[in-house]
Amino acid sequence: MASASKKRSPGLRGGSAGECKVAILGFGTVGSSVAKILSEQVHAPLRLTHICNRNVKLKKVDWVPDDVRWTEDFNDVLESDVDVVVEVMGGLTPAGDWIRKALSAGKSVVTANKQLIARSGQELTVLARKMKRHIAYGASVAGGVPVISGLQEGLAGDELFKICGILNGTCNFILSKIEATGADFDKTLAEAQALGFAEADPTDDLEGLDARAKLAILARVGLRSHVPPESITCRTIRGIEPVDFEYSNQLGCTIRQISWAEVHGEHLLAQVKPTLVALTSPLARVQGSQNLVMATGKFGGETVFGGHGAGGHPTAVAVVSDIIAITRVEQGEVRDVPEPAAATPSVSAEFTTRHYLRFTVKDRPGIIAALSGIFEKCGINIDSLLQRPGYLKSSLPFVVSLEACEASAVNKAMRQIAKLDFLVKPCMDLPILD
Amino acid sequence: MASASKKRSPGLRGGSAGECKVAILGFGTVGSSVAKILSEQVHAPLRLTHICNRNVKLKKVDWVPDDVRWTEDFNDVLESDVDVVVEVMGGLTPAGDWIRKALSAGKSVVTANKQLIARSGQELTVLARKMKRHIAYGASVAGGVPVISGLQEGLAGDELFKICGILNGTCNFILSKIEATGADFDKTLAEAQALGFAEADPTDDLEGLDARAKLAILARVGLRSHVPPESITCRTIRGIEPVDFEYSNQLGCTIRQISWAEVHGEHLLAQVKPTLVALTSPLARVQGSQNLVMATGKFGGETVFGGHGAGGHPTAVAVVSDIIAITRVEQGEVRDVPEPAAATPSVSAEFTTRHYLRFTVKDRPGIIAALSGIFEKCGINIDSLLQRPGYLKSSLPFVVSLEACEASAVNKAMRQIAKLDFLVKPCMDLPILD
Repeated sequence: MASASKKRSPGLRGGSAGECKVAILGFGTVGSSVAKILSEQVHAPLRLTHICNRNVKLKKVDWVPDDVRWTEDFNDVLESDVDVVVEVMGGLTPAGDWIRKALSAGKSVVTANKQLIARSGQELTVLARKMKRHIAYGASVAGGVPVISGLQEGLAGDELFKICGILNGTCNFILSKIEATGADFDKTLAEAQALGFAEADPTDDLEGLDARAKLAILARVGLRSHVPPESITCRTIRGIEPVDFEYSNQLGCTIRQISWAEVHGEHLLAQVKPTLVALTSPLARVQGSQNLVMATGKFGGETVFGGHGAGGHPTAVAVVSDIIAITRVEQGEVRDVPEPAAATPSVSAEFTTRHYLRFTVKDRPGIIAALSGIFEKCGINIDSLLQRPGYLKSSLPFVVSLEACEASAVNKAMRQIAKLDFLVKPCMDLPILD
Repeated sequence: MASASKKRSPGLRGGSAGECKVAILGFGTVGSSVAKILSEQVHAPLRLTHICNRNVKLKKVDWVPDDVRWTEDFNDVLESDVDVVVEVMGGLTPAGDWIRKALSAGKSVVTANKQLIARSGQELTVLARKMKRHIAYGASVAGGVPVISGLQEGLAGDELFKICGILNGTCNFILSKIEATGADFDKTLAEAQALGFAEADPTDDLEGLDARAKLAILARVGLRSHVPPESITCRTIRGIEPVDFEYSNQLGCTIRQISWAEVHGEHLLAQVKPTLVALTSPLARVQGSQNLVMATGKFGGETVFGGHGAGGHPTAVAVVSDIIAITRVEQGEVRDVPEPAAATPSVSAEFTTRHYLRFTVKDRPGIIAALSGIFEKCGINIDSLLQRPGYLKSSLPFVVSLEACEASAVNKAMRQIAKLDFLVKPCMDLPILD
């Protein structure tokens, strides 16, 4: 870290620190999202200084700071005073070599490279440690879902023995789509490809090779089982038909591509397979390209992490979070929020939401007219009126739902409504979270 | 840290470190769970040295190491060489004073005290920083759900603007119970009290005072909005009736106690209220005393953290994870897994699960008999047989579900089944995750 520069900013999340110079290797979807976040300078001590890519002239954009150096030569990065190298090129080569060179040159590394970390994560961690530098790879599994940090940090105090998850968005998109539409596999795959949720060659996703690399990383990080990804059994999701969802439903289940690892003494059970999961499980409710991981520990039971498993921006959040984690530890900070916010903000409950109002009335003509008049005066629109049969006229519950409006308008209406003589008990007004 | 002792252990999760001496203040449910985890010595560099409680003679247990010092006098802890003081007494006094004294004496602090951190978190963080020590409070919100570390670490790279959650297990137990049973509020509250899910005086939980302290902490940590808990509007869940769930369902919703904060420029919107949430939302599916937090960021979108919000063991996991985080930063470690596992374990997919087998056959007599014979020879029991109407006899799909058995037994049966002449296409066999 450039300790001479002790720039601090009220906008800094998570700790003041000396400036940290960052280079990005690979200016694709993730790389440009990382650059975007760093260029917003919310994370003040992080400063983007280099972007390295082939054909860099074709890649240049005008929204990064002028002093960022664009280069095609990795040696420019290696020989610079960059603190953290972000590797988001993908592939095993030259990414692996470049990471080794960066660590050996005394730079910390953040990578999103699942195939590399699944194979060489342990070796690279040992090298980083030898160099008294750091390597972090939170973006290598489940993109924006902070499961690596969750296992390494939030659940560090437990003894985890089981990890189950949905780690491949392509498979989940296809399976949840077949479930919803009843369309056949090939048609659904073609749709996923047209929408960009599946690649032209979807083999790695469909056969489970992508997910098993991620499972190998989670097994090492969460279960301390260091196994090569190739040792994990995979099964394709090809062959799953709409009829399988019909029968699964009869069994109270649906079908998802589940990555599953369990420690049994010195043995690791692990597989990536299309699997029936109970409809009541959080895994059953994961739709589209979302990811979800459930970790089970001896003491803490089941913990769930869910969110966007892919995409430039979510993955870039994981990358930037890792850079911040490295700057903090190099500054001796634990994950505190040391700087007070710039000012204590004003606080209110003036949310703008739809509302649910349940009235309990002694029924007589004119009730709706009376209520409508009050709502109109308060500038509130009624969205729906619900009345279920089977209640006594002397204590009749019915519901009015309101279009989105400010809480204060509802409160004003409530004060006037409280005076109405047909109410048997106070109106129950609840906001609706959309 | 006692840097002279560089004990390392293959059992150590998340980094080797010098021995770290830990004192526990308060030997109640959480305190004894923390002692239990530390006494298992899986987290090798952590060593429990002191337990401080009133009437300590009545509290003593025989399963902590003999060299742990039991005391009623906080000064024994203060004057010792303890590195980390764990405060799990609860209440504002003397907890606040003791934490200040511990920090001032150069010790780091881990606490589960939500009311104290909601009020004094910022002040205590500043004090810790001044003393070059750390304070961590991951257990103060949502017990075992690693949401504080998730916001501070895993999502540090995002700009979060909204946090919504179910932060009070008592309210969620009551509301999800009314939803499931249709029983009235008072009866459900009494049941919750009988089962230990609600206290004799449940005011803090039902009125939202417990949840708003947690929301104030999350707003500070995740949204950088530092507001006193008293400034957050609360509404009781009393008055919610079974009929409200009926009407909510008509609107595609259910009702939960939702803690909700949103940043709008310099203004914070915040409230804790019973709220309608869409049945498709993860919040709607939280049952019993579970907790769930959804954080929304500018770049990463929605991220979900869920699990056990209370209970001695889950809360103790959060405490121990915080101690580990502090020892790591004091050792200059980022959240790597630096030590290779003791040995590369053997790996297999020999899970014992129920199975789903979908056959597609040319229908004729004797099919079930043929299959049953094979299953019997392989030692597999059939659980159910499902056949839906409306398919052609020439390509008839039906399903056999199997009782739990080893994958290898199913594979053996599959090889024999593949030879049967009535199969129109290969059998689709899927494991069932229970």
